[in-house]
Amino acid sequence: MDSFFEQATGREPADLRIDNALVADVFSGEFFSSSVCVGKGRILGFSEMPAREVLDAEGRYLLPGLIDGHVHIESSMLCPARFAELVMPRGTTTIIADPHEIANVKGLEGIRYMLEASRLLPLDVRIMLPSCVPALPVEDAGAVLTAADLAGLLEEDGVGGLGEMMNVPGVLGGDADVLQKIRDARAHGKQVDGHSPGLLGKDLDVFCAAGVGTDHECTTVEELRERIRRGMYVLLREGSAARDLLHLLPGVTPENARRCLFCTDDRQAADILNRGHMDSHLRIAVAAGLDPMTAVRMATINAAECYGLKDRGGIAPGLRADLVLVDDLQNFRPLRVWSEGELIAENGVMCRTLSALDPGELRRSVCLAPLPERPFELRVPSGKARVISLKPHSLITECREMNVCVGEDGLFDIARNPGMNKVAVLERHHASGKIGLGLLDGSYGLSGGAVATTIAHDSHNIVVAGDDDADMLLAVKEIARIGGGVVLVARGKILGSLPLPVGGLMSEEPASRVAEVLSGFIRLAHEHLHVSEQADAFMSLSFLALPVIPHLKITARGLFDVDTFRFVPVEL
Amino acid sequence: MDSFFEQATGREPADLRIDNALVADVFSGEFFSSSVCVGKGRILGFSEMPAREVLDAEGRYLLPGLIDGHVHIESSMLCPARFAELVMPRGTTTIIADPHEIANVKGLEGIRYMLEASRLLPLDVRIMLPSCVPALPVEDAGAVLTAADLAGLLEEDGVGGLGEMMNVPGVLGGDADVLQKIRDARAHGKQVDGHSPGLLGKDLDVFCAAGVGTDHECTTVEELRERIRRGMYVLLREGSAARDLLHLLPGVTPENARRCLFCTDDRQAADILNRGHMDSHLRIAVAAGLDPMTAVRMATINAAECYGLKDRGGIAPGLRADLVLVDDLQNFRPLRVWSEGELIAENGVMCRTLSALDPGELRRSVCLAPLPERPFELRVPSGKARVISLKPHSLITECREMNVCVGEDGLFDIARNPGMNKVAVLERHHASGKIGLGLLDGSYGLSGGAVATTIAHDSHNIVVAGDDDADMLLAVKEIARIGGGVVLVARGKILGSLPLPVGGLMSEEPASRVAEVLSGFIRLAHEHLHVSEQADAFMSLSFLALPVIPHLKITARGLFDVDTFRFVPVEL
Repeated sequence: MDSFFEQATGREPADLRIDNALVADVFSGEFFSSSVCVGKGRILGFSEMPAREVLDAEGRYLLPGLIDGHVHIESSMLCPARFAELVMPRGTTTIIADPHEIANVKGLEGIRYMLEASRLLPLDVRIMLPSCVPALPVEDAGAVLTAADLAGLLEEDGVGGLGEMMNVPGVLGGDADVLQKIRDARAHGKQVDGHSPGLLGKDLDVFCAAGVGTDHECTTVEELRERIRRGMYVLLREGSAARDLLHLLPGVTPENARRCLFCTDDRQAADILNRGHMDSHLRIAVAAGLDPMTAVRMATINAAECYGLKDRGGIAPGLRADLVLVDDLQNFRPLRVWSEGELIAENGVMCRTLSALDPGELRRSVCLAPLPERPFELRVPSGKARVISLKPHSLITECREMNVCVGEDGLFDIARNPGMNKVAVLERHHASGKIGLGLLDGSYGLSGGAVATTIAHDSHNIVVAGDDDADMLLAVKEIARIGGGVVLVARGKILGSLPLPVGGLMSEEPASRVAEVLSGFIRLAHEHLHVSEQADAFMSLSFLALPVIPHLKITARGLFDVDTFRFVPVEL
Repeated sequence: MDSFFEQATGREPADLRIDNALVADVFSGEFFSSSVCVGKGRILGFSEMPAREVLDAEGRYLLPGLIDGHVHIESSMLCPARFAELVMPRGTTTIIADPHEIANVKGLEGIRYMLEASRLLPLDVRIMLPSCVPALPVEDAGAVLTAADLAGLLEEDGVGGLGEMMNVPGVLGGDADVLQKIRDARAHGKQVDGHSPGLLGKDLDVFCAAGVGTDHECTTVEELRERIRRGMYVLLREGSAARDLLHLLPGVTPENARRCLFCTDDRQAADILNRGHMDSHLRIAVAAGLDPMTAVRMATINAAECYGLKDRGGIAPGLRADLVLVDDLQNFRPLRVWSEGELIAENGVMCRTLSALDPGELRRSVCLAPLPERPFELRVPSGKARVISLKPHSLITECREMNVCVGEDGLFDIARNPGMNKVAVLERHHASGKIGLGLLDGSYGLSGGAVATTIAHDSHNIVVAGDDDADMLLAVKEIARIGGGVVLVARGKILGSLPLPVGGLMSEEPASRVAEVLSGFIRLAHEHLHVSEQADAFMSLSFLALPVIPHLKITARGLFDVDTFRFVPVEL
């Protein structure tokens, strides 16, 4: 007979008893006043049994630990330990994480790092295996992950299923490897996440029939309803850029709410610091009129059911003692957070620093071929060029056909094209030496230097923009020196340099430090380098390299016309 | 790309299209008018695609196949194939079956027979491994199943988890083997059924904390609520004897209904023929005022979720095409039933006969030691005896202390004790020769013969009652000859003999035949053998040997005082 059982029967004192709590009973859909006893990290029961520690909850609400149904940790630019320190004081005790970004950089090694780094944490991280690495066959990602590559990981402790299937054409077209990935996850009884914005009708039927079980890309009530009708779970997303929660809430009814849950998908560190994490979903939903119990269920038991986590999602004997004590059902301010019975945060502050896994080889993710002497020379003898134009506050770009000034040597001359920028993507995983070159019209507006980053979706090569070849080169060299990150250069001087040593994507510094540095960089970019206020100084660049968003993008292989799905030369 | 996928995309015609159906969308909680296409046994989608066969549902309701959450097939006295033929025309396509009875007779061999017999059927049978064989340590069952015995079966295809844990004291007392059985099932991610009538408060906490996940023994709304609060699923039972549905329905609310499902537990063949199966639960619940969609969910998706059956419970692309077309939402009369896309029944009639597995060694389940010359001689020299008294229409017995007439040899003399009966239990599994003898007061009332059966809970030895030793002996010999079953004898003549060749519990005859024979036997027992109308001619005997129901019972080891939990002599 184990010690937990001795505690459950009362023969040994409980580790903790929380008295006078309004316990969220997500099973019955009501709150009830009770004691809750905890032992060996699990709920023992509701009796007032002897305990080593007793806490008076003073009539406050005790919720099950909150669950983020879909998140890319990398979007916070924090390694898992620093991410956990950021979200746990907000009440999050479980996340369903898709390490899509690090997998694009380091493949299985990247996934393994996330798995092993997570195992050291009190935040329970369920890893969804990235289904689309690379995102497209025309990409130069750090790895290619086939069904066979992923199959070996499906049995691994901590793996929750297959990550968001973005390759909708692959599914609809019956691509063998794509379907195999889905089948393998299903054969292990695991969830398969979808990503199917706008998909409806017969195509949605096929997508579901193939075995996809969730979607977090709904932006309309119709999309939400059509997915629930087909047995999918719908994750209502509220990220930093994509904010769909308020648009979708009108579609959540008492009858269908059990198929709805919450997620952040992509949320920056500064945003989590300012707005919160799953607690912000609760606040927003309840403020918008959702019944608080329904909101709590969406953040707990519904997510647990969706991902087959039978040991959590509620407060009941035998379940994990993942608990959040909140002040009320409007603010949902987490006063105390327990993970497996351990008090992990109090009044928004972590009770201890978490151990981070040494990223080892992931520190050496920038692997550039020797650079040519003038890597950014761009020949446009005709003076007629395809130019990328950013749309204000959008990831969509336009393709402009412009007359540009060139020198006698036929080279684009930045000095004679004021307001314009050069942009380049340099393959950085396998030292292939591939460099794609392009031009930006005045919509980015950088002058007096260069900006470079290794966050460049989804392949995360180096993207650099500037109005001076030497500054661009300096920025790239600094990126290589720091092992990836974000760099600002002004007239031969490094203005700012944020190392993201873990794969060129994640920092090992605390969230507050990363957020502070980045906000300083953004200020510098706008004030010192004159980047347009209509553009996001870094995110605009990061998504310039993602050839799935219309219309004209740039990869290490050159300019890519998303509409015709082919590479095009700069010169017309 | 497989053929199912070709059909889903419409590149190949569907196998079946059902047009103009009011489809039960159990995910959204509403009915909607649509076509439903089926291919390779699964739902393809809701588009009106080309199909090899088209059915006009004429606006009738299309439900997912119904699921019985907990049933002992043996209680129907039918082998699995005949049971399936009985319930499938009623709309049942999945059952969660606990082969507790056959396991008490034949141990792992019995379980394996149920597994393999089920694999031949269009009824999907999920086997819960019997957790309590024997029911008590004082029993002479056919087998003893330890945690180690069951562990090997947990991975087996078709095994759904651990069957009803009736050993509540074992759980609360922390019995190592009992807890191991629960842990093993949980470690495989499988459900553990409970059986905890009346358990509340701290003991219920411990029962849940140990890992028990369901209960079907609630008889009050309080029990139901307390179990749901603790994260258990509650199965609302409506069997032949135990009818709890109407008592429990007031406890089902829109908020907690997702944790509620239906079950029959024990329902006789005649009862299923007359009242129906899960369709009767729907009728009763809706007539009692439950919202039809909630009722349908309880009979489908809730049960699927409770038992982790991710491939069914709703009508959605990719799920099993287990479907029931019913006339309306009051009668729920199944017009057509499909299992994995195959039309299996129409207007209450099976479309084909099902293949039954040869029970092999299970035919030889009656293994008696050579009988002594006078096996039923009972010495009561003092003339003072403990006598079993049946309570009218109840499984509970009373212990009466009576003066009885004995001969000069000190033997109980039936002729001088009119109205009384002798009762005996003969061990029949291992030819141990154990015979327990007892007396019944006039509450059974048999005169002019004997009744014997191999259905004697839970060990299923032979129980025989009569007013004549020779008739009792003849009945036992006939039982042995037919390999187990039910036998009536009147003054040296066999009045009726129903073979139950499969373990002495189940017939291979169709339900209608078994029901007809049994109803004839019951008439004979009352009219010809004068069994009291207050007693159930056979069930009263079958439960006389179950030493967990108060107060005085009889086993092959003799009289058992359930209150003091010890054997007692007949003579006072």
